[in-house]
Amino acid sequence: MTNWSEIHTYAKALIKEAGENIKNSFSKTLTITTKSNANDLVTDIDQETEQFFIKKINEKYPGHRILGEEGFGDKLNDLDGIVWIIDPIDGTMNFVHQQRNFAISVGIFENGKGKIGLIYDVIHDELYHCMKGQGVFMNDLELPQLKEVDVSKAIIGLNATWVTENKRIDPSLLSPLVRNARGTRSYGSAAMEMAYIASGRVDAYITMRLAPWDFAAGVILIEELGGIATTVKGEPLNFLENNSVFVSKPGLHEEIMKDYLKNGNW
Amino acid sequence: MTNWSEIHTYAKALIKEAGENIKNSFSKTLTITTKSNANDLVTDIDQETEQFFIKKINEKYPGHRILGEEGFGDKLNDLDGIVWIIDPIDGTMNFVHQQRNFAISVGIFENGKGKIGLIYDVIHDELYHCMKGQGVFMNDLELPQLKEVDVSKAIIGLNATWVTENKRIDPSLLSPLVRNARGTRSYGSAAMEMAYIASGRVDAYITMRLAPWDFAAGVILIEELGGIATTVKGEPLNFLENNSVFVSKPGLHEEIMKDYLKNGNW
Repeated sequence: MTNWSEIHTYAKALIKEAGENIKNSFSKTLTITTKSNANDLVTDIDQETEQFFIKKINEKYPGHRILGEEGFGDKLNDLDGIVWIIDPIDGTMNFVHQQRNFAISVGIFENGKGKIGLIYDVIHDELYHCMKGQGVFMNDLELPQLKEVDVSKAIIGLNATWVTENKRIDPSLLSPLVRNARGTRSYGSAAMEMAYIASGRVDAYITMRLAPWDFAAGVILIEELGGIATTVKGEPLNFLENNSVFVSKPGLHEEIMKDYLKNGNW
Repeated sequence: MTNWSEIHTYAKALIKEAGENIKNSFSKTLTITTKSNANDLVTDIDQETEQFFIKKINEKYPGHRILGEEGFGDKLNDLDGIVWIIDPIDGTMNFVHQQRNFAISVGIFENGKGKIGLIYDVIHDELYHCMKGQGVFMNDLELPQLKEVDVSKAIIGLNATWVTENKRIDPSLLSPLVRNARGTRSYGSAAMEMAYIASGRVDAYITMRLAPWDFAAGVILIEELGGIATTVKGEPLNFLENNSVFVSKPGLHEEIMKDYLKNGNW
């Protein structure tokens, strides 16, 4: 019988320790290497943090598998058993440019079902965490269930990219949403934007391409609070592939899906 | 002879005290009234904070005039003498929705020239302050002069509104900037975005309509660090009227002005 409470406690300790290490590293020089895309910065610290998680998880739970952004984990073709999906630093560009507004994201799944979600906004020391069925907490504060809201009263997390010419979505679909919503925001870290949905600071978040480690933890948190998480076509998310992601308060999800995303008919 | 150092010390003390009062008020219910525009929320705390500044400034400097967002200050037709331009809570929507990501903004002018700039990110306890000619500080840390950067390596503060159909700018002007920049962000508080330019977290910020209290302090900080502040047409800002605002690191300002904003020829 899996002791989920013990795993939750261990995961919280790991994410806090990783956060401490990251903060301490700021005094050292950031040695930045670039991936194929100039927008996709990655630092030594990013890689070290993933290796820290892998070492610690393997030590305590050798049977668990790990999917991580930096690629030091396992190669997965399925989500059988217990799988940790980890982004050691979500929002790498913010990390490099701002030394803030990045997060560590850890989602833990059992046979494909989300069991534990953790997002840690390191600099602001906000740890969002949940164990399935037991509510979502920001540090020690239990977060309320998400309430329905209309577009006209909603703040939408949406980058300007998706309403300008791009490869993934016709900009005319979401442009009217920008005009009709109370406001839009863009923070540059999917995990942070999803944590902001959990805490009610943002009402919906729409983006066209995320990897599983970007959204795994966020989806667990948001669904636990009664929020909805799908692709922009309204389909279930696949935790082994890149997806578009549309997470939202209830009610608002249906309204945007119907009036702006045409129920996926595009 | 005006003692600017004394005014600077006094202004810093006031802005810190105002921030404390705001934080303490979170325990009370926010009574929100709406202005003519539903996007323009205003709270009791907003009004109380402005009245606090006015009372304290009048007590100590009865000869100084005050221009404030909430309208309790003076009606100004010129900037003669010493004028405080104050936004008690910049980012009211964030304030109401998030209880963070808002700032108090205070710019102090002498005969239209910026002398003292203060922006206080209350929740994150970051006070940006400067006295003309003596550098810019975030809390006790002196900020370095802003360096030149190219669009391809720049993070631009730009709301999605300005690249969708709107009343103020042809969306096709700035859409290519969204594609060519390293990234865009939108935080929902002009003062915070300008403080982020000062600290190098964002490289440029473009918006189509701000009131003087939204940008007065930010412009003083940014210019002190060698940054450039104009309208989107490249014209000088007018501190008695609404303006479009384009603030940027040097070099980047010229590049965006020429390649995207067509040197104002539109």
